[in-house]
Amino acid sequence: MLNHEVPLDRVFHALADPTRRTLVERLTRGPASVSELAKPLPMSLPAVVQHLQVLEAAGLVRSEKVGRVRTCRIEPSALRAAEGWIVAQRTTWESRLDRLGDFLDEGSAGSTSNSTTPAHTEGES
Amino acid sequence: MLNHEVPLDRVFHALADPTRRTLVERLTRGPASVSELAKPLPMSLPAVVQHLQVLEAAGLVRSEKVGRVRTCRIEPSALRAAEGWIVAQRTTWESRLDRLGDFLDEGSAGSTSNSTTPAHTEGES
Repeated sequence: MLNHEVPLDRVFHALADPTRRTLVERLTRGPASVSELAKPLPMSLPAVVQHLQVLEAAGLVRSEKVGRVRTCRIEPSALRAAEGWIVAQRTTWESRLDRLGDFLDEGSAGSTSNSTTPAHTEGES
Repeated sequence: MLNHEVPLDRVFHALADPTRRTLVERLTRGPASVSELAKPLPMSLPAVVQHLQVLEAAGLVRSEKVGRVRTCRIEPSALRAAEGWIVAQRTTWESRLDRLGDFLDEGSAGSTSNSTTPAHTEGES
């Protein structure tokens, strides 16, 4: 289970920062230049560039420079990988809950006589 | 967009480590004691305890000590929050792609005459 997980390490690490999530949220609505991305953010351009580099290293964003303008785009496969891992956990957990529910249903079906003989056996010896 | 995101910071940070993801994977299959969790892992018990503390601080795991045994359980709401954020990004991105597809379809519908005159114009001059 510990192999092949370096990309997920990077993806989750990249998403652990609110500025980087804001950049991803912006880019899901369409490509944008670095200066467009930086404009609404309360930080310097170099700080935004650093965040974008973390996102690019994680495979969440790709960018292309044409002339003097670097345009960034979302790269959906990394987000999909993170979603896939989380969904797998939820599925395992929910199927366990279902089995537990079945088990409890069977148990209560087999012991419905308890409710018809309340507290009788207790104290009898 | 930068508010209310501290929990997601912690959740994604907690998931950015392969050992912690392995612990979550194990706990989605059912509760386990700290020593059961540590057994298959190539590290010391204190190291595992530290990872569990990060998972607890992120709200991904909760634990309860009865006697000398601490039992850990998955806490699905934190995973759900992370999944919700990622799904929201995918939805935005896919709806943008759909709109783009519609736009391109409209464009190609207006220029279908191109496909009925294959390669004719090329080389003619």
